[in-house]
Amino acid sequence: MPRLHLVAAAVIGLTGALPALAQFQKPEDAVKYRQSAMFVMGNHMGRLNAMVQGRVPFDAAQAAANADVLLVMSKLPFVGFIDGTTAANSKAKPEIWTERAKFDAGAQRMQEAMVKLNEAAKSANLDQIKAAFGPVGQACKSCHDSYWKQ
Amino acid sequence: MPRLHLVAAAVIGLTGALPALAQFQKPEDAVKYRQSAMFVMGNHMGRLNAMVQGRVPFDAAQAAANADVLLVMSKLPFVGFIDGTTAANSKAKPEIWTERAKFDAGAQRMQEAMVKLNEAAKSANLDQIKAAFGPVGQACKSCHDSYWKQ
Repeated sequence: MPRLHLVAAAVIGLTGALPALAQFQKPEDAVKYRQSAMFVMGNHMGRLNAMVQGRVPFDAAQAAANADVLLVMSKLPFVGFIDGTTAANSKAKPEIWTERAKFDAGAQRMQEAMVKLNEAAKSANLDQIKAAFGPVGQACKSCHDSYWKQ
Repeated sequence: MPRLHLVAAAVIGLTGALPALAQFQKPEDAVKYRQSAMFVMGNHMGRLNAMVQGRVPFDAAQAAANADVLLVMSKLPFVGFIDGTTAANSKAKPEIWTERAKFDAGAQRMQEAMVKLNEAAKSANLDQIKAAFGPVGQACKSCHDSYWKQ
């Protein structure tokens, strides 16, 4: 599917995520890939959030490990938002593709906030982690509010 | 769910993956988490495999980027194999839990092979990558043959 590759490569260029070679056999795979990456990201956000909220004891090593996973995951989903992949099982709103520049800017904001969260996590200082966690959560929420059918 | 946490902590201890704090709200989340992590891992294996097989041109930077994602992903799924999570939508065979030591050893074999693949990818030498890719693929297949309903 050369067209898929072409679009994917363009998307990657915009978001600064992994370079081309987005080898999705079929559009459904692109949907499943982005959903999978988002779910894993959400899970690790939840683990870190539990520490930020004080529901579980702060553990610097675990916070850093989760932040490392999050940094990698933050770069992955966007290659899967290929044009025309608004499948029945997808909660992606069509506005993603009609407001692509805004969507990409939101993705980039999240990725930049995640870099700062990663740096904060390495400090082993819970206050710094809390301060850096907020902007990531806001970036997630902002895009979900706009582009995700709840 | 203290019991889930306890089992998850034990599993993580065995496989050398991320430490505790496997905060799955419900068993279905554990199933979805492991499936999501496996799907992302499979996708990046596919991207690297396309280069190993010569279906797409070798690109050292992309190979290394994929290997970095794979190294992180290889550590994630196993915390999700919590006792009793053989849901209807799961292809996990019950033998995972009756042969847990064998299953964990297989996971560890894959993780060790993935470390070597990551080192090979950093060499930017396709022959070295090919040599290191085989054992990862074999480790994946071996566990899938034994523990995954095809």
